[in-house]
Amino acid sequence: MADKGLTSRADDFNAWYNEVVLQSELADYSPVRGSMVIRPWGYGIWERMRDALDAMFKETGHENAYFPLLIPMSFIEKEAEHVEGFKPELAVVTHAGGEELGEPLAIRPTSETIIYSMYAKWVQSYRDLPVLLNQWANVMRWELRTKLFLRTAEFLWQEGHTAHATAEEAEEETRRMLEVYRTFMEDWIAMPVVTGLKSESEKFAGAVRTYSCEALMQDNKALQAGTSHFLGQNFSKQFDLTFQSEAGEEEYAWNTSWGVSTRLIGGMVMTHGDDVGIVVPPRLAPIQVVVVPIFRNDDEATRVLEKAEEIRRRLEDDGVRVRVDARETMTPGAKFYEWERKGVPFRLEIGPRDLEKDQVVLVRRVQAGDEKRKEFLPVDEALSGMPGRLEAFQKSLLDRARERREAGSVRGVGSVEELAEALDGGAGFVYSGWSGDPAVEERVKAETKATLRCIPDDEFRSATAPSEGLGGDEAKMEVVWARAY
Amino acid sequence: MADKGLTSRADDFNAWYNEVVLQSELADYSPVRGSMVIRPWGYGIWERMRDALDAMFKETGHENAYFPLLIPMSFIEKEAEHVEGFKPELAVVTHAGGEELGEPLAIRPTSETIIYSMYAKWVQSYRDLPVLLNQWANVMRWELRTKLFLRTAEFLWQEGHTAHATAEEAEEETRRMLEVYRTFMEDWIAMPVVTGLKSESEKFAGAVRTYSCEALMQDNKALQAGTSHFLGQNFSKQFDLTFQSEAGEEEYAWNTSWGVSTRLIGGMVMTHGDDVGIVVPPRLAPIQVVVVPIFRNDDEATRVLEKAEEIRRRLEDDGVRVRVDARETMTPGAKFYEWERKGVPFRLEIGPRDLEKDQVVLVRRVQAGDEKRKEFLPVDEALSGMPGRLEAFQKSLLDRARERREAGSVRGVGSVEELAEALDGGAGFVYSGWSGDPAVEERVKAETKATLRCIPDDEFRSATAPSEGLGGDEAKMEVVWARAY
Repeated sequence: MADKGLTSRADDFNAWYNEVVLQSELADYSPVRGSMVIRPWGYGIWERMRDALDAMFKETGHENAYFPLLIPMSFIEKEAEHVEGFKPELAVVTHAGGEELGEPLAIRPTSETIIYSMYAKWVQSYRDLPVLLNQWANVMRWELRTKLFLRTAEFLWQEGHTAHATAEEAEEETRRMLEVYRTFMEDWIAMPVVTGLKSESEKFAGAVRTYSCEALMQDNKALQAGTSHFLGQNFSKQFDLTFQSEAGEEEYAWNTSWGVSTRLIGGMVMTHGDDVGIVVPPRLAPIQVVVVPIFRNDDEATRVLEKAEEIRRRLEDDGVRVRVDARETMTPGAKFYEWERKGVPFRLEIGPRDLEKDQVVLVRRVQAGDEKRKEFLPVDEALSGMPGRLEAFQKSLLDRARERREAGSVRGVGSVEELAEALDGGAGFVYSGWSGDPAVEERVKAETKATLRCIPDDEFRSATAPSEGLGGDEAKMEVVWARAY
Repeated sequence: MADKGLTSRADDFNAWYNEVVLQSELADYSPVRGSMVIRPWGYGIWERMRDALDAMFKETGHENAYFPLLIPMSFIEKEAEHVEGFKPELAVVTHAGGEELGEPLAIRPTSETIIYSMYAKWVQSYRDLPVLLNQWANVMRWELRTKLFLRTAEFLWQEGHTAHATAEEAEEETRRMLEVYRTFMEDWIAMPVVTGLKSESEKFAGAVRTYSCEALMQDNKALQAGTSHFLGQNFSKQFDLTFQSEAGEEEYAWNTSWGVSTRLIGGMVMTHGDDVGIVVPPRLAPIQVVVVPIFRNDDEATRVLEKAEEIRRRLEDDGVRVRVDARETMTPGAKFYEWERKGVPFRLEIGPRDLEKDQVVLVRRVQAGDEKRKEFLPVDEALSGMPGRLEAFQKSLLDRARERREAGSVRGVGSVEELAEALDGGAGFVYSGWSGDPAVEERVKAETKATLRCIPDDEFRSATAPSEGLGGDEAKMEVVWARAY
């Protein structure tokens, strides 16, 4: 709708986000509290995320399966930390088929319990290991304050669950899948992330160790974009997931789990969007190029539409996803506006005068990298270069996002006061030393609202290792702090 | 597990079905009553069904979206027939986030109500029509007697929901999607179906008219494999789904809905399976060709495995899905047994003597059509002809199933007694005249346990139209009866 304004990011980032998600038709509120509707434009992006991740999972040896939506309460209660973490958020089915159930069933908030109970049935010997499964599913966590894509009662995700004969192999899997996530987020969402280990207080309920991908949004708040958990034998012991080892001993298997969700769409919006609308990276865009024909009378319409269709066919032959927007009830300007709001990477405008000159106008959704935002190009040149141009645009979005993140990062902070000052000054990721003392974490949270995002992997660490922790004690490691979604 | 026997179909079709689904590792029972686990082999088949259907939906102009799992009870209660049909089967969430809900929420048994409430929000004018959406989702219908894939409390499906400006357009859509289903079932599952209209007593709760695809299983029971509903304005009136027509009038939209589910996997099993295991049509098979290397010592192993890998690469280059089964802890015989039970279309055996002769042994899962079940072939010939051979095998499965169905069909039945006799004699689809009187339907059901499957489309009708109905009254149409799943 061409007449709807959009709050600017600078004025109110939160309002901008909600408006842009609705107006770009990614999603809508539903009549069910906390649940949203993912509209075709948003779902089309999710389908591409799913297909790309799914291919990466399969390349790393995983298969898909499907496990029940409903989990007996007694299962969730078996693992002490797990139940503590998830019970407050459960939606519970108490009646079915017109009767009260003997045991209430929870809608899965995550599926470790039901899945490992099945693995216990399937795995007898070391020969049956590893088990490397993933499921694409909906899950439910009852949330008080919801936000489209970022925090909703129901969301779509994938959850990988694996069982291994040794701790080393499970740890390796945990790291492998973290790396898969990182590659996907950078190569497909053009969203750079810092990978690392979560602190004890921030890890998954039931995990021994949690690794995460942390992205930095344009408001300099962090988004936990994906997690990979080394579960040790916590679940295998509760669900009797044992196997006979090569040496003939009965042993508990070692588990991992890892997941990403439709939250990634929120990450995409807050990484690339601007005051005009969202920006969809070409690899995720259901439509990569929209062709807008321009004409004033029937004769012009015939000629221009014919050319537009030819352009569509030629681009599709090169694997480009194209839409010719031939709607008759809208002006070209209104179409420009709509597709820019929806974040289509490139627009081609073509009118009678372009026909004469055998040219088109190429307009990029944003200026990024060395490319111009708007160019007049001979038709052949415009078409033949399109796949390369889309890839260049994809890459420039990642570069731009990485530059922004680095510009928003502050290193070498030495005290809680300095940390607070940096955050209040608009910093995003703040790096400091840490002794490992949870009391410091609590103090930081209370005084600055920031949380410990992760103990970053080597490549993200500062050139000079900090010697002092935030509490003035000895630094055992460097950590990243941020206010977060 | 090579030592598990399989009940024969002739001895007990029902026991055979349950055993073959479990032993081929399509699915397993879960600890949650009525819910099953779809294992990787079954889910791999479902992924191929989903991708093929999804492409057909998109070719016919549909997009995917995602709507909430939970539906307010008040929504389901709005359409009188709809609530009557579905309320007894609902699973209901009464508590969430540690509190009792103000209004109970049902887990969707189907999504007409929530989806049309959203369309009402999105549609203002005839310009917003048609709305052509589909969702891939899990649904829940609490069943007392469950059966793997055919009848489970939770199942996976797709549900298409459309809104149109005219009844004619909606009716056309209903028929179009029925035809999409039929094409898919024949071309992909190799499962021939009779299409037609459901009687009033068998139609969807809330529909004006229901069309269905009816398949005939090997035990001569019918399986309703997919349905397409013309909903008229039943839901648009309850959910205020109106639009301003071109003439400026406020009108109610016309709706359709259509769905198929994981039940199709059960149909595949009961259409093609035999006493050895299931048979997966090549287009749906996660693995189309399994290569089993045969060797007695390390030297032979090296040479044979090298050849097996070469075969895999060459077939994959031709788009064939191949697995080399190089497991060291199993005999070739045990591998043959496992992959035959799992229904892999073709097996290639290769041993040291085959290497010398530059040949392979090709074994088809079943003999169908003119092709031999087992052939010795030169390697080059075996490989170059594989895509064509797989297609021929796919087609021969369909032909074989169609012949079986026709052999099991009886036409021209003139009375309830004759119908009962035909059914007791092992008939599948029984064709007769019908006056349209629901009392006859009831009598047939009471006396023969058969139901009216459909009023078949033209091409399925008998050469001579019946003049008399089953009750001795005038026949207004020909119908198909069968005992059904």
